[in-house]
Amino acid sequence: MEEEFQSQLLNSAVTELSRLPGIGRKTALRLALHLLRQDVEASDALARALTEMRHGIRYCSVCHNISQEPVCPICSSAMRDRSVVCVVENVKDVMLLENTGIFNGLYHVLGGVISPIDGIGPDRLEIDSLVERVRAGGIDEVILALGATMEGETTNYYIFRRLADTGVKVTQLARGVAVGNDIEYTDEITLGRSLRDRTPFSA
Amino acid sequence: MEEEFQSQLLNSAVTELSRLPGIGRKTALRLALHLLRQDVEASDALARALTEMRHGIRYCSVCHNISQEPVCPICSSAMRDRSVVCVVENVKDVMLLENTGIFNGLYHVLGGVISPIDGIGPDRLEIDSLVERVRAGGIDEVILALGATMEGETTNYYIFRRLADTGVKVTQLARGVAVGNDIEYTDEITLGRSLRDRTPFSA
Repeated sequence: MEEEFQSQLLNSAVTELSRLPGIGRKTALRLALHLLRQDVEASDALARALTEMRHGIRYCSVCHNISQEPVCPICSSAMRDRSVVCVVENVKDVMLLENTGIFNGLYHVLGGVISPIDGIGPDRLEIDSLVERVRAGGIDEVILALGATMEGETTNYYIFRRLADTGVKVTQLARGVAVGNDIEYTDEITLGRSLRDRTPFSA
Repeated sequence: MEEEFQSQLLNSAVTELSRLPGIGRKTALRLALHLLRQDVEASDALARALTEMRHGIRYCSVCHNISQEPVCPICSSAMRDRSVVCVVENVKDVMLLENTGIFNGLYHVLGGVISPIDGIGPDRLEIDSLVERVRAGGIDEVILALGATMEGETTNYYIFRRLADTGVKVTQLARGVAVGNDIEYTDEITLGRSLRDRTPFSA
């Protein structure tokens, strides 16, 4: 495949683009040919943005969210409630939760969930640092906001046990019928949970 | 949407990535976060490959295919039959035809097809330069290899008329049943053409 496209410059660009997730060689070629049709400025701007992003973004030393500073804007904000920490799987989950506009506490990004099949044990995740944060004091509640999957639940339980002797209150996201969904499209287990965890009606 | 992701470096990268065709902001974010998880070398290599490609590749002054030299390897090859020129819509079509291994002549890349709806007239395409190439002599046959679409057929006919007084032989790709396709999946017009243009059986 080395000289597939006659030009080794095109070949290199296609090879590098196709390393991105979800981008095969056909799509990579389409993207490369698109850039060749654009002004030089377009590909220069893209290359510069990617380089500056990768070199400029680090991980917050407190919550492990992405950040341009050693401590991220959320962790260093005086406006946030420092007594509540929401535990999430990854950086994208922080964005999703921030977009709800509901949460005003801090985060803790694990960097994944426990998954024996993928060889990801607790030691590969930011769980020790979470326990340290809680032990350091000032945190009243840890909200587990991992996915309602087998791996998410396993990780929830593991963290719950690790935090057991700290006395911190541990909660998790409510399970229930998705807003906008009909009952008939909700699986039995979720339906059962939503019945058991029913809340007072508010109009 | 300016500060959507808290980090303006991430924001710029997502914005630039989402300018690529078929890549929306969600996909762009997924790609950016992927690069953030990789070594610095991964994004550096991608940025460098794109920049070097865009700055290093120009268009062949003869056939308008992409090339790292003023004249492309096909046009400058002593092994190619210079008496046959295959007219294609774009650079990708050259790659497709080269991959068949059937054609040993030269190419002429139009850079599109005539499409009044998209405001693309003959003057926006490399048609004058094709006529010039033919008038310069040495070309016996021009093969029209444009798509069998309304725009492709219109362009075929326009080129055919422009070349009428040069005396060059003008042919086009055969229309017919696609190899591997059942008759029942072939549309009536194609089936009619394949019947009219039937070829001697060869086992």
